[in-house]
Amino acid sequence: MFRIVVDVMGGDFAPEAILRGAKLALENLPEVFLILVGPKEVLKTFPNSKQVDFLFTEEYVRMDESPGEVLKKKKRASIFLGLELLRDGVADAFVSAGNSGAVVAGSIFILGRIPGVRRPAIATLLPTLKEPMVLIDAGANVDSKAYDLYQFGLMASLFLETIWGRPKPRIALLSIGEESGKGNQLVKETHKLFSTSKLNYYGNIEGRDIYKGLVDVVVCDGFIGNICLKLSEGLAETILEMLKNEVKKSFLYLFGMYLSKGALTSFKKRTDWREYGGAPLLGVKGNVIISHGKSDAYAIKNAIKQALQFAKMDLYKKLEKAIEESLLEGEKVEE
Amino acid sequence: MFRIVVDVMGGDFAPEAILRGAKLALENLPEVFLILVGPKEVLKTFPNSKQVDFLFTEEYVRMDESPGEVLKKKKRASIFLGLELLRDGVADAFVSAGNSGAVVAGSIFILGRIPGVRRPAIATLLPTLKEPMVLIDAGANVDSKAYDLYQFGLMASLFLETIWGRPKPRIALLSIGEESGKGNQLVKETHKLFSTSKLNYYGNIEGRDIYKGLVDVVVCDGFIGNICLKLSEGLAETILEMLKNEVKKSFLYLFGMYLSKGALTSFKKRTDWREYGGAPLLGVKGNVIISHGKSDAYAIKNAIKQALQFAKMDLYKKLEKAIEESLLEGEKVEE
Repeated sequence: MFRIVVDVMGGDFAPEAILRGAKLALENLPEVFLILVGPKEVLKTFPNSKQVDFLFTEEYVRMDESPGEVLKKKKRASIFLGLELLRDGVADAFVSAGNSGAVVAGSIFILGRIPGVRRPAIATLLPTLKEPMVLIDAGANVDSKAYDLYQFGLMASLFLETIWGRPKPRIALLSIGEESGKGNQLVKETHKLFSTSKLNYYGNIEGRDIYKGLVDVVVCDGFIGNICLKLSEGLAETILEMLKNEVKKSFLYLFGMYLSKGALTSFKKRTDWREYGGAPLLGVKGNVIISHGKSDAYAIKNAIKQALQFAKMDLYKKLEKAIEESLLEGEKVEE
Repeated sequence: MFRIVVDVMGGDFAPEAILRGAKLALENLPEVFLILVGPKEVLKTFPNSKQVDFLFTEEYVRMDESPGEVLKKKKRASIFLGLELLRDGVADAFVSAGNSGAVVAGSIFILGRIPGVRRPAIATLLPTLKEPMVLIDAGANVDSKAYDLYQFGLMASLFLETIWGRPKPRIALLSIGEESGKGNQLVKETHKLFSTSKLNYYGNIEGRDIYKGLVDVVVCDGFIGNICLKLSEGLAETILEMLKNEVKKSFLYLFGMYLSKGALTSFKKRTDWREYGGAPLLGVKGNVIISHGKSDAYAIKNAIKQALQFAKMDLYKKLEKAIEESLLEGEKVEE
C-alpha cells in the first residue's frame, strides 16, 4: 500500500470533483491508501474504508490568494497540513489541484529543496507526434535566471533517465529561432551553460517544433511555460470547436464526421491533459504532484495514479541521488 | 495604382516562391504596381509589363544573419534598397518575407520611428472563435520594458480603430492568471500602466483564452509573442496530423472523413496564416509588411494584397496622426 495525501479543497471544481476523483481512485487502484485533507463538513459523507483516512482542517487556500501571504497566515490550510504529512513520512506522495503557487511555496518551505537545487520546477508531460516529452518549467517560477533554466534541464533529464528509463534525453531550449544567436538575453546566457555541459543538448527549438517530438525535454521560464501550456489547451479546444462549427454547415459533413467519430475520440484521448493527471514538482524533498486547476474527477483519479507510480518508483529519492551524483561528477549544480 | 516594393530574396523559399507570388498578385490585383528588388539574374525571366519595375542588386540578407551586422556591411541588400524606395516616396508600401530582424532594424534606421514611439512592433492578425484579433508584439523586440508593452497596446488599439473601424478595442495583457497580482515583474508593471490609461483595458488574459475572441488586442513581449505564434501554427499542424493518423486506422473513418472533407478545407482556410499574408510593423514611418518566413506564392500574393490595402488606407500616416492626437490628449506616449 502506498499512502497518498489528497488536498480536497484545491481546484476550480473542489471539493466535489476531488472527492469523486478520490472515490474513482479507490475503486480502480487497489494499492492506494488515501489521506484526504479538508473540512470535516466536506469529508463526513465520504465512505469509510480500510483504504482511507481523514485529516480535518477548516482552513484552505483560495485559487486567487498570494502564496507568500497564505504561507504566513494560513498555517493550517489543507495544502500545508498535507505537505507536513509528507515531510513527516506519514505519506508517500501529495496531490493538489489547488493554488499552484501555494503548493510550490509550501513544498519549498515545509519539505525543503534537494541539496544543490536552487529552484524547484514543474515538469509537465506533453503528447507529441512521437513520444511524450517534458516541458519544464510549467509555472513554478517566473523571472528565472539562466542558471535556473540550466538546472531545470538537468532535473528533467535525470527524471526521464532515472524514472522512465529514457537514455540520454535530448534537451532543447525554447527560443524564437534555431540559431544560437537568436533569443532574448536569458536564452542567450542559458544557451552557453547548456553548450558547455555534459547534457545531451539539442540547441534552441522554436515554438512550431515543440509538438513534433524532436526532443525529450523543452526548457523555458515558468512564465512562458505556463502560457505555452494553457495556449496549447485553449487552441486544441478552439480547433475542435471551429471544426464542429464547420461540420454543422452540411448534413453530409455531419454524417461523415459521425462515421469517423471513433478516430476523434481516440485523438481526444491521446491529447487530453486529463490523461496525464498531474505534473511532478521536481527539486523538493518529496513526491509532490500538481494537478490542473480545472481538474475533474477523471483528472484527479489519474493524478492519484501518477502519484502512486512516483511513490512506487521513489521519485524524489532517486532524483536526489542522481543530482548528488551529477554533483560529484563535477556538474555545475551549485551556484 | 499603388506602388508596392517586394524583396524577392527574402524567405525560406525565395526567390522562386516570391516571384510566383508576385505574378499571382499582378494577375489578381489590377491596382498594384510592383517594384521587385533582387539580383538581375533572378529577375531577368520575370515577364515585363506596365505593372512592374525592377531594382537590381546582388546583395541580400540571409535568414540567419545578424540584423546589426548586415545593416553596417550590406548596405545594398534588397531589404534596405527596398526600404529606401519607401522612404523616398517612390513606393507606397514594402513587403518582405525575409530576415524579420533585418526588416525591423532597416525600417527603424532608414524610415525612422513615428514621433513618440519608442519601439515599433509587429501586429499579427489571428483568427479566433469570434472576430480576428491582433497579437502585438509578434517578434520585433525581445526584452521589452513595461512602457514598450503599453505603447504596443496603444498602437494596436489605434490601428484597429483607425484602419478597421473597430470602436474602443479591448486590450488584454498576456499573463499566467487573470488576477492582477499574477505574472512576472514585467507584466505587473505593465498592468499598472494600462490600468491608469484611457485605453479600453480588459486586464490580464491567460494563454487558454487567446483564441476565444474575448478581446481585440493581446499584448506581450516579442519573444513570447513569437513563441505563441509559432507554437499555434505548429500545434494546429500537429493536431491535423494526429487526426489523420487516427483516421487512417479504419476504412470507415477514412470514408467518413472523405465525406466531411469540405468542412476540413473550409476550416483550414479559416485558420491558415497564409490567408492573412503578412503583419504590419507598427510605429515606423512607412507601410512595412512582414511576411512569414515560410511564405509560399499564395501567402506572398496575400501579403501584397494587404500591403495594397494599407497603402490605400494610408496606414502609417493615419497611425502617426492618431498617435500625435493621443499625445495631445496627454497620453503618456513619451518616456
